[in-house]
Amino acid sequence: MADTALQFATENHERFLEELKALLRIPSVSTLPEHKDDVRKAAEFVAAELKRIGMENVRLIETGGHPLVYADHLHAAGKPTVLTYGHYDVQPPDPLDEWVSPPFEPAERNGNLYARGAVDDKGQLWMQVKALESLLAAHGGKLPINVRFIAEGEEEVGGEGIAEFVAKHPEELKADVALVCDTEMFAPGLPTLCVGLRGMIYTEIEVKGARTDLHSGMYGGAAPNPFFALAQIIAQLKDAEGRILIPHFLDELQKPTADELKAWKALPFDEEHYRETEVGSTELTGEPGYSVLERTWARPTVEVHGMPGGFTGAGAKTVIPAKALAKVSMRLVPDMTPQKSFERFKDYVLSLAPKSVTVEVRLIHSGDAIVVSTDNPYVKAATDAMHEVFHKDTVFVRGGGSIPIVGDFVRHLKVPTILMGFGLPDDNLHAPNEKFNLANFRDGIQSIIRFVQNVAL
Amino acid sequence: MADTALQFATENHERFLEELKALLRIPSVSTLPEHKDDVRKAAEFVAAELKRIGMENVRLIETGGHPLVYADHLHAAGKPTVLTYGHYDVQPPDPLDEWVSPPFEPAERNGNLYARGAVDDKGQLWMQVKALESLLAAHGGKLPINVRFIAEGEEEVGGEGIAEFVAKHPEELKADVALVCDTEMFAPGLPTLCVGLRGMIYTEIEVKGARTDLHSGMYGGAAPNPFFALAQIIAQLKDAEGRILIPHFLDELQKPTADELKAWKALPFDEEHYRETEVGSTELTGEPGYSVLERTWARPTVEVHGMPGGFTGAGAKTVIPAKALAKVSMRLVPDMTPQKSFERFKDYVLSLAPKSVTVEVRLIHSGDAIVVSTDNPYVKAATDAMHEVFHKDTVFVRGGGSIPIVGDFVRHLKVPTILMGFGLPDDNLHAPNEKFNLANFRDGIQSIIRFVQNVAL
Repeated sequence: MADTALQFATENHERFLEELKALLRIPSVSTLPEHKDDVRKAAEFVAAELKRIGMENVRLIETGGHPLVYADHLHAAGKPTVLTYGHYDVQPPDPLDEWVSPPFEPAERNGNLYARGAVDDKGQLWMQVKALESLLAAHGGKLPINVRFIAEGEEEVGGEGIAEFVAKHPEELKADVALVCDTEMFAPGLPTLCVGLRGMIYTEIEVKGARTDLHSGMYGGAAPNPFFALAQIIAQLKDAEGRILIPHFLDELQKPTADELKAWKALPFDEEHYRETEVGSTELTGEPGYSVLERTWARPTVEVHGMPGGFTGAGAKTVIPAKALAKVSMRLVPDMTPQKSFERFKDYVLSLAPKSVTVEVRLIHSGDAIVVSTDNPYVKAATDAMHEVFHKDTVFVRGGGSIPIVGDFVRHLKVPTILMGFGLPDDNLHAPNEKFNLANFRDGIQSIIRFVQNVAL
Repeated sequence: MADTALQFATENHERFLEELKALLRIPSVSTLPEHKDDVRKAAEFVAAELKRIGMENVRLIETGGHPLVYADHLHAAGKPTVLTYGHYDVQPPDPLDEWVSPPFEPAERNGNLYARGAVDDKGQLWMQVKALESLLAAHGGKLPINVRFIAEGEEEVGGEGIAEFVAKHPEELKADVALVCDTEMFAPGLPTLCVGLRGMIYTEIEVKGARTDLHSGMYGGAAPNPFFALAQIIAQLKDAEGRILIPHFLDELQKPTADELKAWKALPFDEEHYRETEVGSTELTGEPGYSVLERTWARPTVEVHGMPGGFTGAGAKTVIPAKALAKVSMRLVPDMTPQKSFERFKDYVLSLAPKSVTVEVRLIHSGDAIVVSTDNPYVKAATDAMHEVFHKDTVFVRGGGSIPIVGDFVRHLKVPTILMGFGLPDDNLHAPNEKFNLANFRDGIQSIIRFVQNVAL
């Protein structure tokens, strides 16, 4: 039986890939209102396929925003229940002119599939669907364990809908373990489980000066300029070397254990290679005294994502804008909380505001930082599965990004989460030319099939 | 004869206004490439009217950018030649959602005409055309003096074309005095001549960090963020109180004379009223120790107009942008030069750049600061003309804005310039809801007719 599911996946691989391309062609950008219908279209696409492959109780669950996709298959009495999670929404594709091929026209090049959402997370969500299809096909419409499937369409905008659903209806997602496929491998060919994730708060600072936009010739020297106020505020969020200056921001920070730091040091990581191939800047930045892995996994950050306002076209317009915004986010690590962190940030920003302007600080969304347990049989089922596919021992890493739902699974479902992901460090997540390695798409499906089979043992 | 020209203007006023509205409907935004054809259409509109009213040698003069409109009438032997100047291009209308009526659909409200370009400068240019029409109509197709008419379509983007034409072909604009209608009255009903203008340099600072946009979760703490670099740079351009920190920037600054400062103190100016009605901010900003008039007329400024880059849409995108820009301009006062000022600015900005990013500083355009002479008969012709219309003595002020062509007239034509303008301080130049007071449109035409008649005496 086992070989049949793996074999089914191998024999149907080209079709799986073509189906994924069809899903990637739907521009399900959750943050842009004009793509609302596309987001729903992607949800319906996933739901239709779940129905076709034989999953049961397939339905869209409406939320205040984009819908959830639910399905289950609960006929393996006495066997554990796995809750699989993925998301079908994607980041905006801009800047468009930096894409080699258009973001919503999937293109194969150099063993990769290029498209917005290829790896984050449509490709990894599709691995789950295709692993379930292979298992169902090989087992005559049955599964060796119980499975609940949930996918959301708001991961890139804070995941409010699923958070609310998990909090209100934990019994509908009752499971023994969650399987999240939305992370990456530490290096090509190196099976990886992610056991910690940074949390985040995403904020907007809005600064208002004059009542209306003013001519800088006539009013320059008398009217406040919101961009100067923002520059003064932002320049004081970190010192020149990257240390965060928000008072008490790090008070609850827990340092990684000595064992963890030792394991990270053993990972195949070359800082100069990382700078050259992944970042491409003249130098790296960050707090002195911490390695790159510590800085991106176990230290908080503050980032500015954009500063809308004023004149941003080509050429010259001599305006003193009435208002300007800064989109500022912070990554958090255990045991920092979004609530306390936002309050401290907000108080500090307001304390820095020049008197001539009014400043408002808004929380757009947030997610807890988490460290997941490795002390359960599902971790072994996962590492064994990946060893069978990759013939290597799994490394345990943390992730710098945030997957807020993992914290909700811990809090409301009281289940451990296996973060088994097949992205690669150079996959251009959230950036132009996002890609998914085609071999990893294939090996990911094989790994998930084997994980299910190992859980059934 | 004199009365006839004034009377012609009065009798035809409604038609003049309708014609102006037609000109305002052409969105001749010189800085936006998509409006290139509209800019030319506006030039052709002005040229056609000059031909119709009986001006001679009407032609468009091609430049590297938008065309100049030229016309003349040179049959008053022994009489002086006046060169009239205006511009038919306008600023971009954004932010569109703050306009009460659409920027290119002129609307009359409360005795004002609202539209982009209403006062800056189509309305004032049209006053010149209509004064000439009235004089030609009243004098049987003749003018009491010689007139050359020049209008440009690049004033809002630096005026390169006219600057080059004036430098290369001064003989084609040979005149005794220039009449520029592109400034404002100090207060309603108070005739005003502008005798000094700030110069400017408009620059872009471009900061590049990583090779491509990166995910702030994965790379936050290691990859440089261009917005932080820009914030650090901008925050160091001025101190918290508004003093410019660029080394040697003020070395050549000439302070206003004691007489000038005394006259400014006597002007009807209420700082609190100005803050409340014109600026509308909680406080004014600027260098301590200088009045608002000194700060906006006789002190340099640094302003940030926009910071394009990264994510500026609604919602959240967690990107560390590969690059970001700041559009920064500086107003200059005599005897600061654009060239020295830009070099000092550029050197200082580059000295502030963090090592992890690359910074480029570009000069987009510039204009000299000027102080114009009041020691000539044309100033008396202008003040007499305005006294006849407004029954008040003229005040001499400076302007905070830049009209680079005035410097070129001084340098290449060696003629004094009369800056006789009829805008008002609350006309929303370069901002939403730009307007032109309808009474000023009428009185401006009358003043120009009388000025021409006084010059002929």
